[in-house]
Amino acid sequence: MAIISGSRRIRRTAFSDGVEAAGVKGYTVYNHMLLPTVFRSIVEDYHHLKSAVQVWDVAVERQVEIRGPDAGRLMQMLTPRDLRAMLPGMCYYVPMVDETGGMLNDPVAVKISEDRYWVSIADSDLLFWVKGLAYGLRLDVLVDEPDVSPLAIQGPKADELAARVFGDKVKDLKFFRYGHFDFQGHDMIVARSGYSRQGGFEVYVEGSHLGMPLWNALMEAGKDLDVHAGCPNVIERIEGGLLSYGNDMNRDNTPHEAGLGRFCSTQTAIGCVGRDALLRVSKEGPVKQVRALRIEGDIPPCDRGWPLMDGQRQVGTITSAVWSPDFETNVAIGMVRMTHWDPTTDLDVVTQNGVFPTVVQETFWI
Amino acid sequence: MAIISGSRRIRRTAFSDGVEAAGVKGYTVYNHMLLPTVFRSIVEDYHHLKSAVQVWDVAVERQVEIRGPDAGRLMQMLTPRDLRAMLPGMCYYVPMVDETGGMLNDPVAVKISEDRYWVSIADSDLLFWVKGLAYGLRLDVLVDEPDVSPLAIQGPKADELAARVFGDKVKDLKFFRYGHFDFQGHDMIVARSGYSRQGGFEVYVEGSHLGMPLWNALMEAGKDLDVHAGCPNVIERIEGGLLSYGNDMNRDNTPHEAGLGRFCSTQTAIGCVGRDALLRVSKEGPVKQVRALRIEGDIPPCDRGWPLMDGQRQVGTITSAVWSPDFETNVAIGMVRMTHWDPTTDLDVVTQNGVFPTVVQETFWI
Repeated sequence: MAIISGSRRIRRTAFSDGVEAAGVKGYTVYNHMLLPTVFRSIVEDYHHLKSAVQVWDVAVERQVEIRGPDAGRLMQMLTPRDLRAMLPGMCYYVPMVDETGGMLNDPVAVKISEDRYWVSIADSDLLFWVKGLAYGLRLDVLVDEPDVSPLAIQGPKADELAARVFGDKVKDLKFFRYGHFDFQGHDMIVARSGYSRQGGFEVYVEGSHLGMPLWNALMEAGKDLDVHAGCPNVIERIEGGLLSYGNDMNRDNTPHEAGLGRFCSTQTAIGCVGRDALLRVSKEGPVKQVRALRIEGDIPPCDRGWPLMDGQRQVGTITSAVWSPDFETNVAIGMVRMTHWDPTTDLDVVTQNGVFPTVVQETFWI
Repeated sequence: MAIISGSRRIRRTAFSDGVEAAGVKGYTVYNHMLLPTVFRSIVEDYHHLKSAVQVWDVAVERQVEIRGPDAGRLMQMLTPRDLRAMLPGMCYYVPMVDETGGMLNDPVAVKISEDRYWVSIADSDLLFWVKGLAYGLRLDVLVDEPDVSPLAIQGPKADELAARVFGDKVKDLKFFRYGHFDFQGHDMIVARSGYSRQGGFEVYVEGSHLGMPLWNALMEAGKDLDVHAGCPNVIERIEGGLLSYGNDMNRDNTPHEAGLGRFCSTQTAIGCVGRDALLRVSKEGPVKQVRALRIEGDIPPCDRGWPLMDGQRQVGTITSAVWSPDFETNVAIGMVRMTHWDPTTDLDVVTQNGVFPTVVQETFWI
């Protein structure tokens, strides 16, 4: 296995010192920044995430801040989701598309106030798209990347740990809502959200210098809860059907193909870029779509798209796959053509290590 | 040292099979794609690059294709360099900036025809900026990422190797000019360019399926020239003062700060974004600028910006640094304030392993 070469271009985060002290063993790169992928082992991290509580360096979820009189108008241009009911205190999952309906990112938007939003991005330079639009349309907004570093608290004991550091009121937060909480005299936005199915929070740490103090406070407060450094876990996320932009969908795909049609209100999201292109697909439905799949056999690491075959005909692509200890099968996510996407459909997947039998599932493993 | 975790999101290239067969030992990620960083060792690769010839997988230099009636107008909007004299057959190094003059990328533009350009990008999603501008300004252009994968032939024997595969005419190419050459019945654009000071070519391979045939043909043809798989070499590029976007400059910097003022014709590049912001700096000059520096001592890997100090006062930042066997010193690139940028100025650099004496150089090691 190859090592990752460090450079300033691959940015460290506000929590990198903590991540290294915790013995990180693997990284990926996400938004030009280091994202840990494994600490003890992927399987050990997985069991621990499902039973205890972890602190995650997800500073790679960079923010695009949009501020000014035209902020609301620009936000609605960026996504086919209808934002009219969004109020400060709310987080919205907002697929963002180009003029052809192709996905550019699938961030979580945080409404700070009527004229100020943070867009917490997946792995693409969404800032460039938003700046280009704002410039071309002469909108009255400031668009920038602020010094905000999300840190996640995830796992069944996340409520208990968060309450010890931020107070019991943090437990009252509803899903995808946020509140303002005090940490050592500093105001922090804490949201009930995160990239796992185990529950928990994301803290938007404003000011890199506050990163390690918060990291250390959580590690200290959670000792008897068996808190560990963790990271998004590839097994848990595939079981749970959490899509990954760049893996499971990209600019070639519409939100409907990604199974995100419920977030597209193409009729009412007035002014959104890509509306014309998405109107037809929203009526007819897509001809291929994301599906859960099970693969049998000793598959290699899924480091590329794997063609899904019906005999000699390609009918889809596996985009993420890994062995699940809990479900004792290889769990996978793929894009499958409608002719072959019904549950129990038998297919073959072509990997770098040969061909394996694959079955379309009814649902993810949740 | 941590390993790099594979996933479809970190794209393989048209040459990855060849890179793996050649025993790649390290990677970085560049434009969401794998970029090799070391084969035998960084020092062994370095000596070999300077004495023989290497084939580089630089498919990470993705193309932004701009095509249509407004292509020329949009190109001039993207850069403060005056493009009026650019003709088909020419490559131009074109710093690109936002409305504040902050650098978004420093690509090489290739003019295919009057209404068609390829922009061969450094590490940022420039496509998003160009698409946003084109949409906001309703320009009559198509903007997309074509299936084009650059492969570089670099080193003192590059002319000989390229001639064996593309014919002797390739030797007549002038610097930053390109021509059309035949490879096994396929037309390929070959330019005299590349990210080293050793000379050579970049081949724009149109169609991923042609990647490995070309790779193999070069390896076969160059056996007696001691051809090896290589990659941009961190020692050679710092010695030669080749800047790296994201390392040595980013969106915080103007082209003038990066020492690229000679590519900015702010008076004549009519219509370029950022012109207002750059006009003043082009008159007054920047207050900080890229410099070559020498560091004494056993420095750690430069995986972050290192503060440059005059006593207690920070006067700059080292952005790239490594030991040079040929010059028997640590060669470095940094951004230094004008009060301290004169040659022979003595400073201190603060690394993760302590403080080291540093001296501003007159020039890079070329």
